[in-house]
Amino acid sequence: MKLRRSSRLVDMTVYLLRHPHQIISLSYFSDRYESAKSSISEDLTIIKENFETQGVGRLQTLPGAAGGVSYLPFMNGREAENFLAELKEQMTDTNRLLPGGYLYMTDILGRPDVVNAIGRLIASVFVDEKIDAVMTMETKGIPLAYAVAFQCSAPVVVVRRSSKVTEGSTVSINYISGSSKRIQTMVLPRRSLKKGARVLIVDDFMKAGGTMKGMINLTGEFGATVAGMAVFVEKEDEQPKLVGNYTSLLRLSIPEQENRLSMENGNVMDFFTGPGTGGSLENRR
Amino acid sequence: MKLRRSSRLVDMTVYLLRHPHQIISLSYFSDRYESAKSSISEDLTIIKENFETQGVGRLQTLPGAAGGVSYLPFMNGREAENFLAELKEQMTDTNRLLPGGYLYMTDILGRPDVVNAIGRLIASVFVDEKIDAVMTMETKGIPLAYAVAFQCSAPVVVVRRSSKVTEGSTVSINYISGSSKRIQTMVLPRRSLKKGARVLIVDDFMKAGGTMKGMINLTGEFGATVAGMAVFVEKEDEQPKLVGNYTSLLRLSIPEQENRLSMENGNVMDFFTGPGTGGSLENRR
Repeated sequence: MKLRRSSRLVDMTVYLLRHPHQIISLSYFSDRYESAKSSISEDLTIIKENFETQGVGRLQTLPGAAGGVSYLPFMNGREAENFLAELKEQMTDTNRLLPGGYLYMTDILGRPDVVNAIGRLIASVFVDEKIDAVMTMETKGIPLAYAVAFQCSAPVVVVRRSSKVTEGSTVSINYISGSSKRIQTMVLPRRSLKKGARVLIVDDFMKAGGTMKGMINLTGEFGATVAGMAVFVEKEDEQPKLVGNYTSLLRLSIPEQENRLSMENGNVMDFFTGPGTGGSLENRR
Repeated sequence: MKLRRSSRLVDMTVYLLRHPHQIISLSYFSDRYESAKSSISEDLTIIKENFETQGVGRLQTLPGAAGGVSYLPFMNGREAENFLAELKEQMTDTNRLLPGGYLYMTDILGRPDVVNAIGRLIASVFVDEKIDAVMTMETKGIPLAYAVAFQCSAPVVVVRRSSKVTEGSTVSINYISGSSKRIQTMVLPRRSLKKGARVLIVDDFMKAGGTMKGMINLTGEFGATVAGMAVFVEKEDEQPKLVGNYTSLLRLSIPEQENRLSMENGNVMDFFTGPGTGGSLENRR
């Protein structure tokens, strides 16, 4: 159908948001709207400026025959800061304290808008990595993994505690839970991961990091590589973490024998401000 | 910031897509863009036409002091038909048959784009219902529930097979699995549902409907109401289903003792064509 610029802008925006990290050829759009490629290029310039100013993401143009345009979701530093500030306010509530040093987060992680924003934030950190799959451990990590995976345009693989008939043959490993020191099992369907796949591991909560370490080992069993690790909330512990080099959005401390908790930003904000990661907060804003 | 029409259109489109089923006042947009309400109204007319032509959804204008605009995601009949056709093609593969009359769908439900499209389709069926929460049973239903819940702007509540320390106090019921006739337990945190809440129940697979019936009973325990039920795949069975009045996207048959399966559209397409549901397929297209 032939569309005017104003309609093209609306339609292209919808299309790009639904197809992150995918290369869309200019011909696709010019056929879709029966418009010249030069007009499409002008449209994309308008969208690009807008996406960058508003912190929606980057629009990357790839020249040449295999070229086109690719929308890379990217939350800017200011939105990340505001989003984490809002979460901290909601989560620093002693009514949320549960036995065993856990925190009640079910209501917050039950909100799809919050989960989608977490997904956009984590995907921003790994925007320049090639991600073939997003891995998580059932159950609480699942919504987060899908939110991240959508923004990375990658499938989700869900690790389970035991094998299920609906998943066909599986690979399983034993691992030691970091906090309880108990031996536990994790299982992944054999068809889930290809050799050499680059895996982003995502989870909702990390205490000592035993589960995360298990998922690293499981990734190795498939001949796949860990491209990155991200957790929503990490808990400050007396014991050192079993894994390093992960991104955390929030950091929880529960002082011993006191009925209080504190929540601060995790290391994710270093990504927006850190010297080794592409410049100052201003640049990334 | 002051924006030109072309930039406003891009930004408003992003904003509307991220805030389905929410009333946004014209003042919000006119403040955001430092533009007259009359210009905003014109912008919305362009977006509305486009969303309706392209099957993105409806844009509902609510007049008066509490008024504004609301974006209601709605997949049209043609997109629904094409989407189901694609799924049927991928799923009608005897390699997917598993012992016990199950189907391997982990790869398909691992794709966030597929899951999001299922969410848009189910949300379309319930577009005119007030939905306060989307309920599902762990584990496979979770991604679907979030995809639906985002489009309905409602939180997700996840029913579990046993209570977990991270969820606080819980309500549990026993139910009889429809296929295996075994007594099983389902559990939901006490804080999950308010009395009178209207609940949309979503699941990935239904055999006899025992799990679905359990979730109906559990909803009743909270003094909440079932606003609707939807399953991705229902399986044809010799025994009659334990529940009625649900929406299914696909219907699977596995003839006894034969190594084949067939997959056809579920009753969801009646919504787009049925006489009692607002008109012909053409109208809903």
